[in-house]
This record gives sequence, C-alpha cells and structure tokens, in this order.
Amino acid sequence: MFIEQAWLNYRKVMNESFRKYLTVLYCNEEDAVLSSGIRELRLAFEKMYGIVVPRQNAESDSGIQLRLNCEAGLGEEGYHIYPDGEAFIIEGGTSNGILYGVFQLLRRLQSEADADAINERKVPDNPLRMLNHWDNLDGSIERGYSGDSFFFKNDEIIINGRTVDYARLAASVGINGVVINNVNVKAAGTYLITDRYFAQLRRMIEIFSSYGVKLYLSLNFAAPLELGGLSSADPLDADVSDWWKRKLKEVFEELPGFGGFLIKADSEGRPGPFTYGRTHADGANMLAELIEPYGGIIIWRCFVYNCQQDWRDRVTDRARAGYDHFQPLDGEFRSNVVLQIKNGPMDFQVREPVSPLLGGLKATNQLLEVQIAQEYTGQQRHAVYLIPMFKEILNFRTYCEKENDTVLDLVSGRTYGHSICGMAAVANTGADDNWTGHDLAAANWYGFGRLSFDSGLTAEEIAAEWITLTFGTSSEIMKVVHPMLMNSWPIYESYTSPLGIGWMVNPGHHYGPNVDGYEYDRWGTYHRADHRGLGVDRSGKGTGYSTQYHEPNASMYESIETCPEQLLLFFHFVEYSHMLSSGKSLIQHIYDTHFEGADEAANMAEAWKTLEGVLDRNVYVRTLARLEHQAMHAAEWRDVVCSYFYRKSGVADEKNRQIF
Amino acid sequence: MFIEQAWLNYRKVMNESFRKYLTVLYCNEEDAVLSSGIRELRLAFEKMYGIVVPRQNAESDSGIQLRLNCEAGLGEEGYHIYPDGEAFIIEGGTSNGILYGVFQLLRRLQSEADADAINERKVPDNPLRMLNHWDNLDGSIERGYSGDSFFFKNDEIIINGRTVDYARLAASVGINGVVINNVNVKAAGTYLITDRYFAQLRRMIEIFSSYGVKLYLSLNFAAPLELGGLSSADPLDADVSDWWKRKLKEVFEELPGFGGFLIKADSEGRPGPFTYGRTHADGANMLAELIEPYGGIIIWRCFVYNCQQDWRDRVTDRARAGYDHFQPLDGEFRSNVVLQIKNGPMDFQVREPVSPLLGGLKATNQLLEVQIAQEYTGQQRHAVYLIPMFKEILNFRTYCEKENDTVLDLVSGRTYGHSICGMAAVANTGADDNWTGHDLAAANWYGFGRLSFDSGLTAEEIAAEWITLTFGTSSEIMKVVHPMLMNSWPIYESYTSPLGIGWMVNPGHHYGPNVDGYEYDRWGTYHRADHRGLGVDRSGKGTGYSTQYHEPNASMYESIETCPEQLLLFFHFVEYSHMLSSGKSLIQHIYDTHFEGADEAANMAEAWKTLEGVLDRNVYVRTLARLEHQAMHAAEWRDVVCSYFYRKSGVADEKNRQIF
Repeated sequence: MFIEQAWLNYRKVMNESFRKYLTVLYCNEEDAVLSSGIRELRLAFEKMYGIVVPRQNAESDSGIQLRLNCEAGLGEEGYHIYPDGEAFIIEGGTSNGILYGVFQLLRRLQSEADADAINERKVPDNPLRMLNHWDNLDGSIERGYSGDSFFFKNDEIIINGRTVDYARLAASVGINGVVINNVNVKAAGTYLITDRYFAQLRRMIEIFSSYGVKLYLSLNFAAPLELGGLSSADPLDADVSDWWKRKLKEVFEELPGFGGFLIKADSEGRPGPFTYGRTHADGANMLAELIEPYGGIIIWRCFVYNCQQDWRDRVTDRARAGYDHFQPLDGEFRSNVVLQIKNGPMDFQVREPVSPLLGGLKATNQLLEVQIAQEYTGQQRHAVYLIPMFKEILNFRTYCEKENDTVLDLVSGRTYGHSICGMAAVANTGADDNWTGHDLAAANWYGFGRLSFDSGLTAEEIAAEWITLTFGTSSEIMKVVHPMLMNSWPIYESYTSPLGIGWMVNPGHHYGPNVDGYEYDRWGTYHRADHRGLGVDRSGKGTGYSTQYHEPNASMYESIETCPEQLLLFFHFVEYSHMLSSGKSLIQHIYDTHFEGADEAANMAEAWKTLEGVLDRNVYVRTLARLEHQAMHAAEWRDVVCSYFYRKSGVADEKNRQIF
Repeated sequence: MFIEQAWLNYRKVMNESFRKYLTVLYCNEEDAVLSSGIRELRLAFEKMYGIVVPRQNAESDSGIQLRLNCEAGLGEEGYHIYPDGEAFIIEGGTSNGILYGVFQLLRRLQSEADADAINERKVPDNPLRMLNHWDNLDGSIERGYSGDSFFFKNDEIIINGRTVDYARLAASVGINGVVINNVNVKAAGTYLITDRYFAQLRRMIEIFSSYGVKLYLSLNFAAPLELGGLSSADPLDADVSDWWKRKLKEVFEELPGFGGFLIKADSEGRPGPFTYGRTHADGANMLAELIEPYGGIIIWRCFVYNCQQDWRDRVTDRARAGYDHFQPLDGEFRSNVVLQIKNGPMDFQVREPVSPLLGGLKATNQLLEVQIAQEYTGQQRHAVYLIPMFKEILNFRTYCEKENDTVLDLVSGRTYGHSICGMAAVANTGADDNWTGHDLAAANWYGFGRLSFDSGLTAEEIAAEWITLTFGTSSEIMKVVHPMLMNSWPIYESYTSPLGIGWMVNPGHHYGPNVDGYEYDRWGTYHRADHRGLGVDRSGKGTGYSTQYHEPNASMYESIETCPEQLLLFFHFVEYSHMLSSGKSLIQHIYDTHFEGADEAANMAEAWKTLEGVLDRNVYVRTLARLEHQAMHAAEWRDVVCSYFYRKSGVADEKNRQIF
C-alpha cells in the first residue's frame, strides 16, 4: 500500500534560483541526525529539481554546506540558513538544529522562494515540543479518528517504513518528543517497561533519535502491583521505591536515549498517590528522583477532578479542580518534573477560558497540553483548523507578572527561566493513508509543530505554508482552502454549543449533538438550561472559579458586563432575553449562529467543489465526502440545538425559520 | 457450584393428609416424559415427607396412580388430579398432560392443601406457551440481566445438570416450547442449522422433550448467502428455495422432535424479504411449505419498522408500523405460520396500548409476545412483577367480533378456531445462581408460564403461589412480599415515564433516566415535550394510529376526554396545565407521581428489612441490595424527570419540594 507523505511530497519547483547550489553537498560532521538531513535534502532535490546532488568530502565555498557551529549562538536546536557567495549554508549549533534548517530550507524552496533572499535564523521558542499518542497496544487508539495505530498491533510494536516517515514528518515541523502509548495505561501497555518490549523500543528510539525526536512512554502508576507483585504503589513506601529504582535503572539502561514518562494519576479511574493519602508531588518526585541520574523527566498531567459528581450539586465545580489540586503544590516538584496542563479547565471544548493554573504556578515547570485529535471539535470528520485557537491561548495574558506574563511566556520558560517546558498535543494521526483521516486535519498536526517551534508565526501564515506544501502553489487552491481553514473554527463553534458552555454532545463517544447528554450525569459538565436561560455561575457568587485568576482577569470574568461574550455562558447564568453586544437577545443569538453556521458549513462543501479537477482526484473525493457529511451534520446540530432551546424557552425565532 | 431450584425446592410440609397415598407409585405406561414425572414425584415426596415411595408394577386401587387416559377429554395436554378411594389419580390424555398434573399436585401439596379436597382438571388455555431466549453463542445474552447464557459458551452448546433443571422449571409452569438462541442471529448462531451443532442439539432435544418442551431455533434469513454461498436469499428464487429444501430436510432429519423456527426479518438491520421486493408472506410461506412435511412451524415476528426515522418527521409513526405492514397480509400466510406480535406497538414499555394488530388479523395464526426480561422495566435490578400487566393485555377487548374478542380469546384460538397460537415471552434467565438475577424476578418467569397455561388465574393468585413455593408458607413473608409484588409495576411506572409516553431512558442499554435520550434520534420514539406540554398526537388528526383500532376503541383513544389517562400522552399532546381526573394538572401529576413513586420504592426496601432472619440469609441480603439500589435509582429518576419538566415548563411544584 502506498503511504502518502502529507506535506513532504516535494513537488517540482518553478523557481530556478536555488539550482546553482545543487552542485555538491558537504557536511563538516556526520552522525545519524545529519545523515537524515542529508538524505532528506537529496531526496527532495531529486524530486524538486531532478538532480541527484553528489556528496563532497572536503569543505568548499560552493554548493550546499551543512555546518555544525556551536559558536553561532543557535543553542541546542536553532538554525541559520543563508546564501554565502556560491555556497548555501545550513548552520546549526547541533545536528538537530541543522536538521530543522534543512526542513525550513525545503519549505521555503517548495514555496518558490527566491534562494538569494533566504536568510533565516531561528531558535525554537519552546524547549519541549511534544506529541502524545493515545495508542493502545491492541492497535486501537483512544479518541483516534484516523484508523488504527501504526505503533502497535496485537500487543506488538510495529516498526516499518511508516515509523520512519512518521519521524520525518514530526521532525520536519519541529517535534522533538513523542509519547507513543495512551495515558490510560492498561493491559499490555503496562508491560512496555519490561523486557517483552525493550528490543523493539530500542529500534524505535534509533529511528526517532535519528530525527532528533526523543521517545517517551506513558507509565502505569500501579505497576508495582501489576508487575512487581507488591501489595502497594504508595510512593513513600520503601519497597515501592526500591522496586521502581530497580525497574527504572533497567529501563534506562536497556533504552539508551529514552526520554522519560508521562503520567495520568488519580484521574478518571487511574491509580495515583491519592490512593495512599499522598500528594501528587510525593508521587511525581519519587519517580523523578530515581530517573534524574539518567537525565529522564517526569511529565505529570494535571487532569485531576471528581468524575463521580452529583449533577444536583451546584457547589462542586470541575473547572476549579486543576487549580485547587495543583496550585498549592507550587514549588514542591523536583526540577525534572514538568506539569502538563490542559489549555482549559474542562476538556478540549470548542471554547474554554485558559486554565488559571497557567499563571497560578511560579516555581513549577509547565507544559501546555492541547489536543489536535478533534475529540470535541468534529472528530476529523468536520474541518476545524485549531491553530487560531492555540494562538489565542498562547497570547492570553495571565497577569502573573507585570510583563512576560502570557501563556507563551510561561511555557516557553521566558517568565520564570524554566527549561523543561513547552507544548504538547494529543495527536491526530493513525494508519489511514493520509495520516489524519480528514486531509484538512493534517493542517493541525503541521500547525501544532510549526507553532510550538516558532510561536511568532500567525495562524494565517501556517495555514498558507501547509496549503502550499500539501497542495502546491496553485492560487486557485489557496483562495479556496485558506479561508476555509481560517473560518473553520468559528463556523464549528457557531453551530455547536454556544458562548463557551461546551459539551452538548453524545456521552461516551462525544460525537454529534445531545444537549442534555451530560446534563444529568456524573462528569461535572452541565449547562443548567431551564425555561429562563442557561449557563453556569462561576463568579465569586457562584462556584468561585473566576477568583482563581489574577486581576484584572478575575474582575473581567466576574461581571456579566465585562466577561468576553465568547465565554459568557461559561461564567454566568444568562437569561434568554439578555441583550448581547450585537443587539440580539441570547436566544436569538443561539438561533442565528446555528442557522448561519450550518449555512457556512454547507458553503464549505460547495467551495470545495470548485476544486474538482484542480486537486488530486483521490484527495478531492474523499475530502468532499467529509465536507458533505459535515454540512449534513451541521444541519443536525442546528436543528437539535435550536429545537431544544425553542422547546425550553418558548421564544420564537424572529426570522421565523423552521424549528422543530 | 450449588444451583438453586427457584420454586422447585420442595420444603417439608406440615399437612399430613397426603401421606396416606405415599405407599406405592404406579403408571400404566412408561416413556421419557412419564419417567420425568415419576422422578419428580419421588424426589419431591422424599424432600416433603421424607419417604422414598416405591414403584409398583401392577395397577392397584391405592397409592399414587398415574393414568394415561385418552378418553378423559383432556386433550393433548390437560390433566385431572383427584383422590379416588385409597388412591390418588393423576390423569392425562398424554404423558405431557400427566406431567403437568404432577407439577400441579406438588404445587398444591407445597401449599399445604388438604389432599382430599384436591380435584382439579385443567386443559391449558393456550396451545403454544413459549420462552424466547436471546442468548448468543458466545455466551452473552442480549438484554440479559441474570449473568451469562447457560445454553452457550464460546460458540459451543452447553449440556449439563442445569439444562435438566431448566427444562424441569419450564415444564413445571407449563412451558412447552423454547427458542434457545437470539432472534438477532449472527456469527456462530447462523451455524446452528449445520452439522457443527446437530449432535449437541439432539442431546438437548432429548432432555427438553422428556419434559414436554419442544426445541425451536431462531433462523437467519440470510443463511443461503452465509452458509450456502448463494448470491441471494430471495424467497421466490428457485436456487434459494432449493437450498432451503435440502437444508431443512437435513435439519429435521438430524433433529427428530425439532419444532421449527422463529424469524426476525427486515427489522433493525436484519435481512428479510424486503431486500428482494417480496412480502413477509412470501418469506414465511416459502420456509413454512418446506417444513410442513416434518410438522414444523414458522414463527414470524411482526416487529418491523423504520429504525432510520428523522426525529423532525411528525408524520411517520413507529406505532403504526406493525399494523401497516402485516394487516394487509391477513389470510396470506400458510397454516403452519404463526405471527408473533408484541403486546404493544412500540417495544415493551412500562405502559403501552395493546397492539391493534391483535384484533386486526382474522385469518392468521397469532402468538402474543411479551417480555419478562425487564429491558425497559428496571432490568431485574428494580422489582417489577409483570403479571398484572399481562392480565390487562389478555383481557383487552379488541371488538374484532361481537364476543370472544379479547386478546386472550384471539391468541388462545377461541375467536377464530386457530390451533397454532398462544403466548411467548422473551426470557429473563441466565447463569446466576438464582436464575433471574433479582430473586423477585423469578415471579415473572413463574407467572408467565402459569398464566399462559391457565389464563383464568389472577395476578394475585399467581403471586401467592410463587411466594409460597419459593419462600414457604410463612404468613409474615406473604404479608410483605405479596403487596410488594402487586404494587411493583404501578410504583415503577410512577417514577419513570409518565402516562404512557414511554422511553426517557439512556440510549443503547436502556437503563436509567434520560428524558431526551431518544428525542433527537432515529428510532421513532419521541415525547415531543416543549415549554407548553408533551405527548404525541396519534389521533386521526395526528398520525392516525388511533384509527387502526376497531370501534369503540378508536373513538375512545381519539378523544382527549375519553382516552384512558394511563395512555393519555401516548395518544395526545397535552398541555402542562391540563386538568386530570384527579383534579391535578398534568405537570403536578408528574411531580406527585415521581415523588410518591420514589418514596414507595424506598418503602419496599424498608419492608424487606422486616424479613431479616425470616428469609434465607443469602436471599435476604442479595435482594436487599437490589431493593436499596432501586430506592436510590428511583430517586434519580424522580430528580431527573422532575428537574427536566420543571426546567422546561417553569411551573413550580405546588408542594414546594426540592427540584433541581
């Protein structure tokens, strides 16, 4: 089966300005990463220019020169690409930096850039740029919408050509760390740290590290019970830490270059330190201390909340849980522990406020977690380009300090000088030919990597890059696909749950409209709609969630007048008759946005049809099928949500459209 | 593992009046069924009186005399039990009749009846008295709430002591036909009609038939494709009928005594004649003709409806579907086809009108289908004694004729002289020690059998019989459990969906409250609640469903004034302010019934507690756990339903109770 290469297709280029450098290719060092870079360049040049560029053994002042230069101020991963007389220089402080320079050069050339105008120097903004795969060893993927796993099948690790292509794709956009197994570690997943899997993991590490990508694993906190036969997993129990000490020594010795562990503890039924009356700092530090000698890190997820809530209870607020659990532990975590914090306080909804834990922690390493697997944003059957959302999150001012206080400042390490920090995304890949199920969903994988590496890029720039690399430089395609991507998040938001309230999906699989789906359930995810209005009072008079923010954010959210309307229902119970800034009542806003959103979804499919014959047939057809499904499904969302609120409020649509 | 015997425990009896007959035991014939009867008597007498009654080889005028007498007017299955001088006679026109007499005698003796006062003669009211098991060959049971299957495991047929005990229990209450596999025939189930299973099926038939129980199988209409390798299952295709002819000849020759097939076709994704543009008569008749030579029958389910309905569509009405599909075919089915008709037009809800197909067919054999598996009535975690519901159904006057027009008249064959007809129940058994998960659920198995055999029994009588046989003659137990059973159906109804509207359950598994669970779905099961009221207009001005009944039923349902209130919302959209005969508004009725019902459910658990030390400890504890769960879950139903309707209507509870 032919496996597609997403944005690494290397089409023929028209611009000839780089051709003069295609004489020789030289590198002043050689290691696995540089070999990858050289291989990539030669492959690309052959496809782009039809030239097999010869290797050269001695430095010269022409051709393409890869130059390791630890005095260029490029740090661990930066690059500098520029023309220098008859040579074109790809410089890096490390092999990894050079590799990133290689991919950046190829991106520019694929975009028909003028070679002599290229002079780009970039040190990545975030130290850690990670993908979290929720792949199970049986080959299924939790919240996977692109086919089965390509890492695992039938409890075995798969290593084949796709493993290499995956590493290339990840590295090409700047990813430098990958967790390959589901954070819910169960069954065979627990055995990844045993000799059942070491040989295959070593092969995987070899491939990944040749692209500058570190391998991490999700860890089962209950492993001492399940693997060790102990009767406890208490982190302060000497038998338990002895067992871990031996086990972790074995793991790091068997797996040279291994990065460390991601851990979901005390969450949604997973075991953790709470079982033994210990804190999350106790749990994380015990493991972190043991792996420090090997340079390993512990990535500890902050997704801890009571998932057995009573829907009648209006005091407990799931949104508060992350801050309430972890803020008091600030400063207690070891230096090789990093807390992985979801962007919002709930769970990857189409619209959430930024988690107040970001800005609530000063003396703790922080990793921002986003999700490009579109669990709540259309499951890769709806087109939703998420980079504009991520940009908003990164740019959010937390006011934790007078300056350098944005989320980007925090997770990049700028605010408090951390170096184990950055961004992680729950991945959206699978064994489908096109990697991401929906062709347009690849823009999220691409975009997350690019944004984590170069956070100054705009969402528009990233979209344009991806379109060009994926579909070529056709302006016809750009004209259709670029606005489609840029509008896709607001469109999806408009026909799903309104003004930040979230959810309203079918329980379990989380797809499709079900306004009361979670309303009378135990998950802490309520809209509280009645005949008067809807929304959750999270102000100081309500659950008090708004007080977890620094000022002036706390005051802004506190008041219905100053709360951003996009988050109005997240923070306040609002009556249907409440007038929004648009001059529309809340209920009319719900009707209008849902009708408009469904129309716009239908327009997306129509717009795509103008590309028939322009796009590759296969890509055209399969994407059209998804866009047409989206249009149908957006109408279903519209009708369910509008009918629900009409039936509840009794307020007729001013425009007299059909509501059921 | 000790397997419990449900109502066949044979406790010691106090009344000594029968002891004088325990001298000898004689039978004027001997076959497998009579051997079963004799074995049962000797086992019971030993346990009840401590006497091993010797067999006698010659007839005499004392002791217990089993007498086959085809001239006693007892038909195929009737019995007559009576004292005759120093002998006690158990007479039957067939061995099966004698066996039923044996079980009736034992029931009377277990109830401490005076032996000399026993003189009972009964010919069963319904020719067919069947259980349908929805057991899958992998050992799971669709809608099974009592553990795994005891018929199948890992695609094999299980034959062991429980097979015999099952047959005893079934026969003891008059069951004479059993379908052992799920009507949704998939995977290995399709292969039951191949030599993979013939040997084990022969063994099972041998056991069953020794208790007068015929074995039937559910059939996959697509077997010609799946087993025969044909490209069609068109019933009018000669290749298809040739294949069936050979296959069915093989089945009946390999399985002497086999009864025939139950078929679910063109329903919920099952294949059927519609695929080939044929009618259900075409499909059923083709098979029926082929098995007529072997005395086999085809039981054809009428559960055919569009399960891909659009919730926006208010014209299509699932309730109409059975009548619309099958009434026009009246008279077209062969004489060895019987239509199996669910009691209501929907699907075993806590309250439904009687299906208008019952009374709509004159020239067609009819079998009434009820469900003792409590799919929508608490799944054997809530106590719901269903016999009062079945009594109402049987007594319903259809007005298809001037007299003999009740459902019982129809399915017993009385109205139109049919002989292949009767009652079938979807079974509630499984591998749990007590057979039915909830101990009290055994009353439904017991009661269904007894009612199908002797439809003149009242629900009260059956409950009393079952309590005595199961728990002994303690009046303390009777005083608690009898009203508990008799009130359980109205109690369950009061805290679940109101006034006949049904559903309001979680989709898929059908357990627990979810008012909108099926409201915006494709299953045709809507309540149409809005801010004004709720209910479905099924009158002539609505979907027209009410017109499928004969007069005066049609007119009764047509009008909101004459429609029985228990079914008000099934037939009409009614405003919350509508005054019911109680003088309460509809909304207040919803609030009151739900609060009262939840209170009553709590009272059931409290009442049970008075039996601590009186009941067997194991039975006491495990039943209390279920009753306490029911009380908790009834409160959940109350709160969800009341909150839902309060939030929608905005009408406050007059009694100012807490609604969320």
